[in-house]
Amino acid sequence: MLFLVQMQVNIPSTLDKATADALKKEEKEMSQKLQREGKWRDLWRVVGQYANVSVFNADSNDELHQMLSALPLYPFMNITVTPLAQHPSAIAAI
Amino acid sequence: MLFLVQMQVNIPSTLDKATADALKKEEKEMSQKLQREGKWRDLWRVVGQYANVSVFNADSNDELHQMLSALPLYPFMNITVTPLAQHPSAIAAI
Amino acid sequence: MLFLVQMQVNIPSTLDKATADALKKEEKEMSQKLQREGKWRDLWRVVGQYANVSVFNADSNDELHQMLSALPLYPFMNITVTPLAQHPSAIAAI
Amino acid sequence: MLFLVQMQVNIPSTLDKATADALKKEEKEMSQKLQREGKWRDLWRVVGQYANVSVFNADSNDELHQMLSALPLYPFMNITVTPLAQHPSAIAAI
Amino acid sequence: MLFLVQMQVNIPSTLDKATADALKKEEKEMSQKLQREGKWRDLWRVVGQYANVSVFNADSNDELHQMLSALPLYPFMNITVTPLAQHPSAIAAI
Amino acid sequence: MLFLVQMQVNIPSTLDKATADALKKEEKEMSQKLQREGKWRDLWRVVGQYANVSVFNADSNDELHQMLSALPLYPFMNITVTPLAQHPSAIAAI
Amino acid sequence: MLFLVQMQVNIPSTLDKATADALKKEEKEMSQKLQREGKWRDLWRVVGQYANVSVFNADSNDELHQMLSALPLYPFMNITVTPLAQHPSAIAAI
Amino acid sequence: MLFLVQMQVNIPSTLDKATADALKKEEKEMSQKLQREGKWRDLWRVVGQYANVSVFNADSNDELHQMLSALPLYPFMNITVTPLAQHPSAIAAI
Amino acid sequence: MLFLVQMQVNIPSTLDKATADALKKEEKEMSQKLQREGKWRDLWRVVGQYANVSVFNADSNDELHQMLSALPLYPFMNITVTPLAQHPSAIAAI
Amino acid sequence: MLFLVQMQVNIPSTLDKATADALKKEEKEMSQKLQREGKWRDLWRVVGQYANVSVFNADSNDELHQMLSALPLYPFMNITVTPLAQHPSAIAAI
Repeated sequence: MLFLVQMQVNIPSTLDKATADALKKEEKEMSQKLQREGKWRDLWRVVGQYANVSVFNADSNDELHQMLSALPLYPFMNITVTPLAQHPSAIAAI
Repeated sequence: MLFLVQMQVNIPSTLDKATADALKKEEKEMSQKLQREGKWRDLWRVVGQYANVSVFNADSNDELHQMLSALPLYPFMNITVTPLAQHPSAIAAI
Repeated sequence: MLFLVQMQVNIPSTLDKATADALKKEEKEMSQKLQREGKWRDLWRVVGQYANVSVFNADSNDELHQMLSALPLYPFMNITVTPLAQHPSAIAAI
Repeated sequence: MLFLVQMQVNIPSTLDKATADALKKEEKEMSQKLQREGKWRDLWRVVGQYANVSVFNADSNDELHQMLSALPLYPFMNITVTPLAQHPSAIAAI
Repeated sequence: MLFLVQMQVNIPSTLDKATADALKKEEKEMSQKLQREGKWRDLWRVVGQYANVSVFNADSNDELHQMLSALPLYPFMNITVTPLAQHPSAIAAI
Repeated sequence: MLFLVQMQVNIPSTLDKATADALKKEEKEMSQKLQREGKWRDLWRVVGQYANVSVFNADSNDELHQMLSALPLYPFMNITVTPLAQHPSAIAAI
Repeated sequence: MLFLVQMQVNIPSTLDKATADALKKEEKEMSQKLQREGKWRDLWRVVGQYANVSVFNADSNDELHQMLSALPLYPFMNITVTPLAQHPSAIAAI
Repeated sequence: MLFLVQMQVNIPSTLDKATADALKKEEKEMSQKLQREGKWRDLWRVVGQYANVSVFNADSNDELHQMLSALPLYPFMNITVTPLAQHPSAIAAI
Repeated sequence: MLFLVQMQVNIPSTLDKATADALKKEEKEMSQKLQREGKWRDLWRVVGQYANVSVFNADSNDELHQMLSALPLYPFMNITVTPLAQHPSAIAAI
Repeated sequence: MLFLVQMQVNIPSTLDKATADALKKEEKEMSQKLQREGKWRDLWRVVGQYANVSVFNADSNDELHQMLSALPLYPFMNITVTPLAQHPSAIAAI
């Protein structure tokens, strides 16, 4: 089951740089682990913004929320989720 | 070069059904042609809406506009385009 | 899997009354069928609006979209869908 | 009398962790007490957000405000309230 | 129980004048009946708009919805409802 | 002359509690003085929010601004003002 | 007493040209009469829009509403009204 | 003096095709005349929309409004105007 | 050339009172100097807000930006600028 | 390939002045370097705002993002990007 997930990152300027860098490194590792597992299907940077457009593949709403809320940068992100369905004109089945 | 393209379809109720059906059929054919050519990379239905979330692969802004404006339903769609770039944590190159 | 579904109905004044009444009758029947099946878990009227707040129980995004897009009034509704997950403080499991 | 209540939690990063944890613990206890009493009828997590969708059952606007404003996290929440009424197609009476 | 009710009237220009005038006359009569009964507590015109700000006194959400949806101009109004509670600084009890 | 006045209170968490409590006490006193004088005609709490819906009776825009800007919590409030006029269907003159 | 009044004109394309022209002519006459009386203090065109920015001088909210609602184009305008007060730095008294 | 001008075209579907085509042809001619005169400095299509982003060079607000309101498609466009000034980091003087 | 200028002041609570008072005093002096020169044509307080509605008379966009950006409170203001033109119904030339 | 880029600068008041000044100086240098290279085609100040309207000429979305995200003030800017295409009425090819 696919979901469009849009994440906007807002790390407060009061967070010290070492902590922020550590969080970003962990975020990258977890992101790549989820990508390799096929859960985080697509990940793109929005041009000009500290934001991404992603497509997740989750078995349920609960699994999706567990993945998102476990991200190291989760407390600093505004996330919107759009559920996606098979489009009748799509040549690929989802 | 990838672009997130979100299309909302608003066919006016004054359009006669035969014309609308013909436009939808042509739209589907053109959409599938572009998908087979790899230009219309992804196409999903937004749950509960006559709308789609798409990812296009275009060589330029001009090529993208030509593809979108040539769609049979183009006069009846609100379209927003978000340019996408390589994300540093993505394991796949775009 | 639960989803908050908010539907706003906008029947155009140009639709003749007999057609509108027939659509509303079919809508009611399909709605009650889905409620009896446990798919349309909750259905409330928003005070002062031709709108409802609903909770759907669907096995997948696709099933939810099929239910919503099959509603007789679907062409005349603006629908927003919010995926819901288990809340850690909820005493009931979803 | 039912109300859709949507709560968005924004705990400031300046609040020390011990205080925040204590508030969250008290919030959970009060929430579960209200759920057991049948006042907080439904409680779901919004996927990807530190937010919930709830349905409250209150005898009056005043009772609802007293319950909401007594929540330990109340000073850190943006809350919107939508009054709900019986829907003519609902098979259950509210 | 008090509710702030804001009504914006949008009578379509396609409605013939006689029908519109009849609806407005019935609206006025029903409005004044509800005012005399103490249900429609306050009614003011918004300066410069075909809109009103009202305060309703209803025993329940259901009673409020029944009053609003029975108004002759209801199909042509956008209505928002804000539930009100006793303010701790108010010298009058509601 | 009546005005709908909507006040949203946002006391910054950095304000020390003693100062905030003193301001709230003064606010209540000034509010009740204005209510007794008939200037602050109505005062209600918005359910679920640190906000109020009020109706002021002022002789002029200047008098209204002087009353609002003299409130102890004025620096911490977002205020919107809607001028009200006699409604042709109102049974009471304003 | 001064008010900033912003008017956006939306004459429906279904209105026949003769009627529209007659309304515009009457609107101009009434506007100029109010300007000569000192009630419509300022009238400017918003660049690029069928809209104006105006300043009205009215003795009361009721007088302002009577002037605005008597304008021939009133049924086709969206109007917003902002009450103005003396500014402490203004060298002119209003 | 430069202005960012953004135009969104909304030709109603009820306008007959011959009239619309004639208007578009005249619009193109007037646009190109203004471009050749250096008044319409830049003209670009917004990808995916019947809209343009333009930069106008006008001697005054009045001249700009006269140019815009004389465009054949003016009655069918939503236009926003942003006044531009010399940027201290720009290497070109405007 | 006239411009509607709307300024919303947001002085951060972290700014010490002496600095803020000095800035406000300088702002008042510069404002009154510009008013005496005929550049700041009108200045009104928005009722209930730390905001003003102003009309500026500037020879160019650049002159307007220089005046606004030189205001002592400029770093703490949100400013919107609307270019104004002669209205065909105005009895006064601008 | 052209893009409309709108940048709003929000330097937090907690950033010390020396750091802010250094960043602004570097920003100016990088901006002028990109302008000389023809990449930053246009740069204008929005009147009354710490914001600019720019037109960038980039070979790809990735190149545009690399230029924008390398700007010294990038962490303090809200940036929106609108892809532009050749307009059929433009006399200049882009």
